[in-house]
Amino acid sequence: MNKNRLEAFSDGVLAIIITIMVLEMKVPHGTSFASLKPLFPVFLSYILSFVYLGIYWNNHHHLLHAARVVSGGVLWANLHLLFWLSLVPFVTGWMGENHFAPVPVALYGFVLLMAAVSYFILQTKIIKANGKDSVLAKALGSDAKGKASPVLYIIAIGCSFINEWIACGIYGLVALMWLIPDRRIEKKLKEGTN
Amino acid sequence: MNKNRLEAFSDGVLAIIITIMVLEMKVPHGTSFASLKPLFPVFLSYILSFVYLGIYWNNHHHLLHAARVVSGGVLWANLHLLFWLSLVPFVTGWMGENHFAPVPVALYGFVLLMAAVSYFILQTKIIKANGKDSVLAKALGSDAKGKASPVLYIIAIGCSFINEWIACGIYGLVALMWLIPDRRIEKKLKEGTN
Amino acid sequence: MNKNRLEAFSDGVLAIIITIMVLEMKVPHGTSFASLKPLFPVFLSYILSFVYLGIYWNNHHHLLHAARVVSGGVLWANLHLLFWLSLVPFVTGWMGENHFAPVPVALYGFVLLMAAVSYFILQTKIIKANGKDSVLAKALGSDAKGKASPVLYIIAIGCSFINEWIACGIYGLVALMWLIPDRRIEKKLKEGTN
Amino acid sequence: MNKNRLEAFSDGVLAIIITIMVLEMKVPHGTSFASLKPLFPVFLSYILSFVYLGIYWNNHHHLLHAARVVSGGVLWANLHLLFWLSLVPFVTGWMGENHFAPVPVALYGFVLLMAAVSYFILQTKIIKANGKDSVLAKALGSDAKGKASPVLYIIAIGCSFINEWIACGIYGLVALMWLIPDRRIEKKLKEGTN
Repeated sequence: MNKNRLEAFSDGVLAIIITIMVLEMKVPHGTSFASLKPLFPVFLSYILSFVYLGIYWNNHHHLLHAARVVSGGVLWANLHLLFWLSLVPFVTGWMGENHFAPVPVALYGFVLLMAAVSYFILQTKIIKANGKDSVLAKALGSDAKGKASPVLYIIAIGCSFINEWIACGIYGLVALMWLIPDRRIEKKLKEGTN
Repeated sequence: MNKNRLEAFSDGVLAIIITIMVLEMKVPHGTSFASLKPLFPVFLSYILSFVYLGIYWNNHHHLLHAARVVSGGVLWANLHLLFWLSLVPFVTGWMGENHFAPVPVALYGFVLLMAAVSYFILQTKIIKANGKDSVLAKALGSDAKGKASPVLYIIAIGCSFINEWIACGIYGLVALMWLIPDRRIEKKLKEGTN
Repeated sequence: MNKNRLEAFSDGVLAIIITIMVLEMKVPHGTSFASLKPLFPVFLSYILSFVYLGIYWNNHHHLLHAARVVSGGVLWANLHLLFWLSLVPFVTGWMGENHFAPVPVALYGFVLLMAAVSYFILQTKIIKANGKDSVLAKALGSDAKGKASPVLYIIAIGCSFINEWIACGIYGLVALMWLIPDRRIEKKLKEGTN
Repeated sequence: MNKNRLEAFSDGVLAIIITIMVLEMKVPHGTSFASLKPLFPVFLSYILSFVYLGIYWNNHHHLLHAARVVSGGVLWANLHLLFWLSLVPFVTGWMGENHFAPVPVALYGFVLLMAAVSYFILQTKIIKANGKDSVLAKALGSDAKGKASPVLYIIAIGCSFINEWIACGIYGLVALMWLIPDRRIEKKLKEGTN
């Protein structure tokens, strides 16, 4: 099976998701700085989602790069991940337009949680297709970040009904944690090719 | 002729179709769980169409992968398929927003039917360009699923005027039937390359 | 300069243009066949534009395929073509929603005319970069279709103020004339590589 | 790391940004030439932004083409650039719909400024990853245009509160200055490969 086309399709979908989010920022009717003010929470949620989708693209890039074999299961696991990511513009718009109200903040966390779970499934399928002794399997090691993220999302979903800013703070923290590119895979790959 | 560019263009169109469907899910004005309720049928129809487009991408991927020669006729047969698929977001939105009313459900089936017919034409053109003894021709064999689908769509269109849920059930069943990736081609290709 | 990236970018833009046109077909509020009726002219104009964009993609594909050298001028001539094509969804929507009224029909023709002119400029730049004795230059020959199209568009623009259906008929005829893939280039290329 | 996928993703995002801008040109309800008149400033701002995005695509193409090594930092610097460019459709729409009012014109300049700054960061990261003696580092030389642009944007932002047409004139001038493709890199690359 052709890995390149899987990458190209995923790139296309991710590029569209990351870009159509900006359509949620409706052009205001006024022409003063004040007329931009109601857009500020929408803009904030846009930045958060842009960073998250950037992280997913980045990690997806590393994950596929390390894969040598792509099975039919990997293809569907990838579409499953893209499905949850395709809901990001919707929850981003809902959260931003409602100034980070509890239910939208919780739903945003739920979509992040499902994306993390589907990424984990994709990763597992790729490791399975490539063998437990593959470079990828070794590179991921304990996968601490991958295991911590869903737990943090669940905590944040709970928090969103107490104080939505704690929930948003956790989303921001998880993003920061991932912003550091996955040097594990990069490093192991280098060792693997040497 | 360049097969890669045909794949890249199709990937682009399919990636956009699958992603702009989410724009039909308009961000609700309320902030409670209840305000999401009217979106539920839209969401259901989104899932169904996402799966269908995933299946088409998957099968298209296998079909083109097996092709060695791409003629001018293949190019137009491919655009014909993309035309019908480009109508999926429209019929998905109409069916979802009207809570699976009979006429929208029937029209949804009609677009699925035309997509199936145009896929069949594309497949025939590719086989013709590659020869009847090609790996692809052998891999497809009797093509039972490809022949059963249009029949089932026609039955579903008829049913949608009696009970729309039977029609939707048939759409779901056909999707399930195709969810199993086209192992025939994969298997034969492996044999062909051995 | 990298021809592949020029093709990939053009494919992306063309894929988006061809797909966002469907967003002009707003989901109707009713659920009967009658509620689809006002969409019929929009649908007709969508088909016409889909075919035109398919023709441009097809010819662009052949043109670039035949090119060996891509200069800086080619890059900007290509963007110029994409600019006019990017206006197609706008004029398609205006023409369709106003049931083929004279001015929208004339403007549609004007955008087709400018696209044809910019395609001609692109073709000239590519021939210049590849040499007058290149396979491409020979393949195009007298380029009768390329010269006839702008003349026919100008006639159609004039006609649209007398009878808009004559104008639309001419647009349809030009599309039909181009639907036959550019076998000249294909044939000459084959000879060139033998 | 895979340079091709970085290019493909950037092409996708740029292709979408350049195309969705046209969605800001809402189809008018009238059918006369007069009904197009209010769209004229929107169209003007669309042309300006189309040219700017074309310039960014062009320069991005040259920059990446010259790069041999792509680090993790380059990936994020690239996403940072795409973030600011993704805001172009929003500021284009705001500026056009408000007939070039002072604040929208200033914000347009601010987004151009941030895009220029992020392009500069990307360029610096790529030079760092490729070495100060690389072909790219030599090709850029003093990078006079790259240094002049942010200064001109800042002047234009200031001018927009005095006379918005001076600001727009400066934006146009900077675009013209860049329209000439980056022959420095092209030339040096040729020398580098000889």
